[in-house]
Amino acid sequence: MALFIPKPSPSSLLPLHHRHHRLLSLSNPRRKKSISFGSRRMAARASLIEPDGGKLVELVVPEMERAMRRKEAQTMPTVRIGRVDMEWVHVVSEGWASPLRGFMREDQYLQSLHFNSLRMEDGSLVNMSLPIVLAIGDEEKERVGGARDVALVGPEGDLVAILRRIEIYKHNKEERIARTWGTTAPGLPYVEEVITSAGNWLIGGDLEVIEPIKYNDGLDHYRLSPRELRKEFDKREADAVFAFQLRNPVHNGHALLMNDTRRRLLDMGYKNPILLLHPLGGFTKADDVPLDVRMEQHSKVLEDGVLDPETTIVSIFPSPMHYAGPTEVQWHAKARINAGANFYIVGRDPAGMGHPTEKRDLYDPDHGKKVLGMAPGLEKLNILPFKVAAYDTQQKKMAFFDPSRAKDFLFISGTKMRTYARNGENPPDGFMCPGGWNVLVNYYKSLQAEETEQQSAALSV
Amino acid sequence: MALFIPKPSPSSLLPLHHRHHRLLSLSNPRRKKSISFGSRRMAARASLIEPDGGKLVELVVPEMERAMRRKEAQTMPTVRIGRVDMEWVHVVSEGWASPLRGFMREDQYLQSLHFNSLRMEDGSLVNMSLPIVLAIGDEEKERVGGARDVALVGPEGDLVAILRRIEIYKHNKEERIARTWGTTAPGLPYVEEVITSAGNWLIGGDLEVIEPIKYNDGLDHYRLSPRELRKEFDKREADAVFAFQLRNPVHNGHALLMNDTRRRLLDMGYKNPILLLHPLGGFTKADDVPLDVRMEQHSKVLEDGVLDPETTIVSIFPSPMHYAGPTEVQWHAKARINAGANFYIVGRDPAGMGHPTEKRDLYDPDHGKKVLGMAPGLEKLNILPFKVAAYDTQQKKMAFFDPSRAKDFLFISGTKMRTYARNGENPPDGFMCPGGWNVLVNYYKSLQAEETEQQSAALSV
Repeated sequence: MALFIPKPSPSSLLPLHHRHHRLLSLSNPRRKKSISFGSRRMAARASLIEPDGGKLVELVVPEMERAMRRKEAQTMPTVRIGRVDMEWVHVVSEGWASPLRGFMREDQYLQSLHFNSLRMEDGSLVNMSLPIVLAIGDEEKERVGGARDVALVGPEGDLVAILRRIEIYKHNKEERIARTWGTTAPGLPYVEEVITSAGNWLIGGDLEVIEPIKYNDGLDHYRLSPRELRKEFDKREADAVFAFQLRNPVHNGHALLMNDTRRRLLDMGYKNPILLLHPLGGFTKADDVPLDVRMEQHSKVLEDGVLDPETTIVSIFPSPMHYAGPTEVQWHAKARINAGANFYIVGRDPAGMGHPTEKRDLYDPDHGKKVLGMAPGLEKLNILPFKVAAYDTQQKKMAFFDPSRAKDFLFISGTKMRTYARNGENPPDGFMCPGGWNVLVNYYKSLQAEETEQQSAALSV
Repeated sequence: MALFIPKPSPSSLLPLHHRHHRLLSLSNPRRKKSISFGSRRMAARASLIEPDGGKLVELVVPEMERAMRRKEAQTMPTVRIGRVDMEWVHVVSEGWASPLRGFMREDQYLQSLHFNSLRMEDGSLVNMSLPIVLAIGDEEKERVGGARDVALVGPEGDLVAILRRIEIYKHNKEERIARTWGTTAPGLPYVEEVITSAGNWLIGGDLEVIEPIKYNDGLDHYRLSPRELRKEFDKREADAVFAFQLRNPVHNGHALLMNDTRRRLLDMGYKNPILLLHPLGGFTKADDVPLDVRMEQHSKVLEDGVLDPETTIVSIFPSPMHYAGPTEVQWHAKARINAGANFYIVGRDPAGMGHPTEKRDLYDPDHGKKVLGMAPGLEKLNILPFKVAAYDTQQKKMAFFDPSRAKDFLFISGTKMRTYARNGENPPDGFMCPGGWNVLVNYYKSLQAEETEQQSAALSV
């Protein structure tokens, strides 16, 4: 991933209407307010950014009502859901998609598809760029019949949630794909994983999730909900929260950017900006580095002191990845508002990938940043675009790219980084902290060992 | 085209946020206000609905400045535009797309593509669902170079307009098509006519149109601009204007609907509702009935007294047709706001067509109406959905479909109508006024004569 440095962007880059209220507002930062309280002066912490819709949605059934709900669910038709559906149940249940309270009904689906936003009762818009929907097949639709509520059953057959006041409507996959990805070319990872084999109907309704979603993969302690994150920001007395979304290992270019952002926020008058380092934990494509490896790598980066643990929170964002570029980056930003972030760092080609059938990027690398700056419902979020960082062969470290001495810079793409690690080669000194790099090297070694084993197993059959 | 009767729609049909302010507001119609003026009481006509952006955009150069502009244009690089581009120049120059002042620059294009709306300086949204863009090729881009303004030259080589403060950006056709039509299947008429062969760049800028666009096809007197229509509505002292968009001959089912709508508006307290019968005059697909034939047919419908000339204005809407269903119907409605209409009649599957490669409708026939009711920027427009009308074989006339005696009704689709006319058969009595029907019969006869002639010419070669 190439990096950008936050800077006031040329006005031509931004849609007219945003010039006045978006991008690093260089004045008027939110400051701690002093309130006179009798004869004592107390520092009142400024409150965090409001969740979309004004109130954080939380859909897990209180413990004492669970037995009752389980019993009630036994009387309902069941719908079996898959692994990625579970991830969405998790996402919605914790309020990442606030004010959404379940899988979308048709009016929400159409608004999401056509306008990337939902209108609230008071006429205001909240951002909602990805359709969060649950597909069912003809047979399931038949079985559900005229029921008002259904029980959602996980891949293991366990009751996961109740879906209330359901609405079943047509799942036009072609239209959904075209409007979400801007292409219908075969080979889109989320489409192949989730949509192609899905049923021809969508079922919307309000979720009641029986128990908090857990993965038991040793990483659940990293999965803080928006409420838990807000509590943590409060505890640390954050007066600014800046979120960094990623699905790749952190190299020193990322770190440079995050540290530089903090410095700039301090310069702007914020007293305690907190970084939310927020790797995506749901479905990713096969050649991305798996979550457990990334989490180990991230924790080494903090151990090695590249990022400051005092002002950094590392947590997992439970959403699956769409690789839908400008459409998806809105989701990534919107969800972080709900977790309390009021600054969002956006790089080149966010949530982008290569075109699945043509030799080009699927999206214009600048569109993500531009669309994010225009998106309805994201006006209250400060977008931080950043300039390219690359390996400076003179200074022997990652640095912001200086076009006046372009020859000195080496660009190390994700693919190149993986190739180094796979071949057991070292990247140039200063590209990544040694502890973090070792995690990757070991991962690719284990992958190769596994492949060799599979090959010999295949040969011996 | 099947018809719907205006009725308060079940709330489930409407997005939550619109329940309070959309669809036939049955109370509080706009009434003539009485203003006390000294000792005389004057009736002050209620003003028409505001154009989008507050002011109607008009981009034709004043007569006395034209010579100067022509001279100036000689110093500019030229861009040759096609027939459909000319239609867009026409549309934009008269303010149908207000507040748009030219071909879209990238920030407008992205907002249109992703959000179907444009944000104004004050933060409000206007609807803008179709990208109104001008494509150029590599060679033209090269020729334009770093110029600030370019001269647009028509198909005949004549200077049409100046495009000011241009911006050139990438034309990702696949993405444009996918996001506008919700499919990339081959065979979309507008795509094949305009996009497939277009260049890989879009050029945006502000238009200055040298002279009013004329077609010299004997129909220019039907092409009233939004300003002229507003003047006409004012002259007739309209206190409600209801627009009917069509691209087909008017049969008695349409007439029933339009007359019924007027009756309902009178019931609501409006004193003088005026119908804008507004056939689309730009590009249409090959098997649609051509504009001149439709205009002749429409005038017969008025001559035969099926519609009341006193309360009806027939005029041509100069836009080309996209056949982009729910995305396009927003454009159709938005443009009519600019012409002064505050009520918009929407039927089943507006701007829809069959899927070009699959045996189904391209769009869910209800989505157009639903999306129209949700669309940002259209809140001020009253949407009038209507119920199916069909031929009632008992009453021997077109009537609103009564499901309790479904067997009595005959549905005559556009295809069926054309088949009747082509074969010289008569449709059932009361389907269309005889004068209007004869126009169609004669058109298909002339078509056949032409075909026969071409065939014999081909045989004799």
